[in-house]
Amino acid sequence: MDRGLLYGDGVFETLVVEDGRPRFWLRHIARLHAGCARLGIPHPEENRLLEESLPVISGVDRGVLKIIVTRGGGGRGYQPAAGVSPTRIIQLHPWPDYPETCRGSGVRVRLCRQRLACNPALAGIKHLNRLEQVIARREWNDPGIMEGLLLDGDDRLAEGTMSNLFLIRNRVLMTPGLVRCGVAGILRTVVMELAARVPMQVQVKALGLDDLWGADEVFLTNSIIGIWPVIAVDGHPFRRGALTQRLQELLAELPSDGETWLN
Amino acid sequence: MDRGLLYGDGVFETLVVEDGRPRFWLRHIARLHAGCARLGIPHPEENRLLEESLPVISGVDRGVLKIIVTRGGGGRGYQPAAGVSPTRIIQLHPWPDYPETCRGSGVRVRLCRQRLACNPALAGIKHLNRLEQVIARREWNDPGIMEGLLLDGDDRLAEGTMSNLFLIRNRVLMTPGLVRCGVAGILRTVVMELAARVPMQVQVKALGLDDLWGADEVFLTNSIIGIWPVIAVDGHPFRRGALTQRLQELLAELPSDGETWLN
Repeated sequence: MDRGLLYGDGVFETLVVEDGRPRFWLRHIARLHAGCARLGIPHPEENRLLEESLPVISGVDRGVLKIIVTRGGGGRGYQPAAGVSPTRIIQLHPWPDYPETCRGSGVRVRLCRQRLACNPALAGIKHLNRLEQVIARREWNDPGIMEGLLLDGDDRLAEGTMSNLFLIRNRVLMTPGLVRCGVAGILRTVVMELAARVPMQVQVKALGLDDLWGADEVFLTNSIIGIWPVIAVDGHPFRRGALTQRLQELLAELPSDGETWLN
Repeated sequence: MDRGLLYGDGVFETLVVEDGRPRFWLRHIARLHAGCARLGIPHPEENRLLEESLPVISGVDRGVLKIIVTRGGGGRGYQPAAGVSPTRIIQLHPWPDYPETCRGSGVRVRLCRQRLACNPALAGIKHLNRLEQVIARREWNDPGIMEGLLLDGDDRLAEGTMSNLFLIRNRVLMTPGLVRCGVAGILRTVVMELAARVPMQVQVKALGLDDLWGADEVFLTNSIIGIWPVIAVDGHPFRRGALTQRLQELLAELPSDGETWLN
């Protein structure tokens, strides 16, 4: 009877766990809270989620912490009940077995036929309505293709099925805006911050396929994969360039304790 | 770990139960199967669902049978696992306490700010990604407003949050096509079939607000509510007309046993 199952009425976060600590904890919680606010779900307090998460990840060398918050049970149809209490689900998942070469040599990706629909009320947040991503991910089985890129309904690049997309051209870092569709990834923000240290100019803007084919470097980000250089899109080759490598180095150099882990 | 919760990766049906029997059973199962096929979920056999549903609804005078089928548990992220087995959930819900006046006197409805996004891969089927409907239904609390109408991103009328929309003008029955968004309701199809007995011409076509304001009669349908005449949209009055009443009579006259119940 939980509305998370009945309607996908909730949000989630997927965090890296290393040495029993959740990386970018406060950034993830901030996005979780923003998602709850957008959907009108009372958000669980940060310290409560931390108290409930720490025992789950205690002693874990490397894993994935998933936090799901749904609106809870009850209500007549789509209208939530007045006093409904949100559900909190804390899960520990094994570290995914992506080949180590993904970060080093880079990955081959494809363009998906599935489009991301325009929905400003849901854009940016990490909600539980993920059928577009499931449909897109079902388009290929080739284990050599690590990700699929999605366009929106107006032929603009949006993101990957599980990652955000960055293009570099003439030392300018570009990534699609996410006011119509897509998920505002935590690593996406981190990478845009790191770009200042390269230094590189950052542009959040509408990008089309011409921008992709004309890019000097292309890469993907998410919290789990970090930064994956893209070396081919549907056979069109790209090089793993120096600026992508520099961003990978800066990401790896972020301190592994202290504020970076809880901020 | 069920993908129904994690991603809304599944479909559902909501059936009227009267005297222990599910109304329009085969039509609902056909839509469930169509939804499974669209999402690539192996569909549960009809006789298996019937065997599992009958004990749940046995002896129930009037209620609502909900059948949920999800892709099941497992898989790495959005990619379903190869051998994943679908989950079947059979629920009995109490009959909703809509005022009896809704069918007789008609209902007041509103236009929602929320739009339905264009997603041909999901249009028509009754999948578990229902955040658009939840967001739309949260726009009002006035218990005197029984439903909200949704436009798509191109200002075309789509449907209500929980119902399909019909307009009548010059004895022609019109309802929006559902190739870009919306749910192809079972009652929507039944009503279009009944229209032949009135007789009325039926047009499935793009409809805008001008068509709504210019309509002679307006009504809503779903399996549970049947046919609700609309007597006001955002204060703009409509009359409960003779043709809507005639369709209500024809619906009420459908035999309560035999093929109608299992077809």
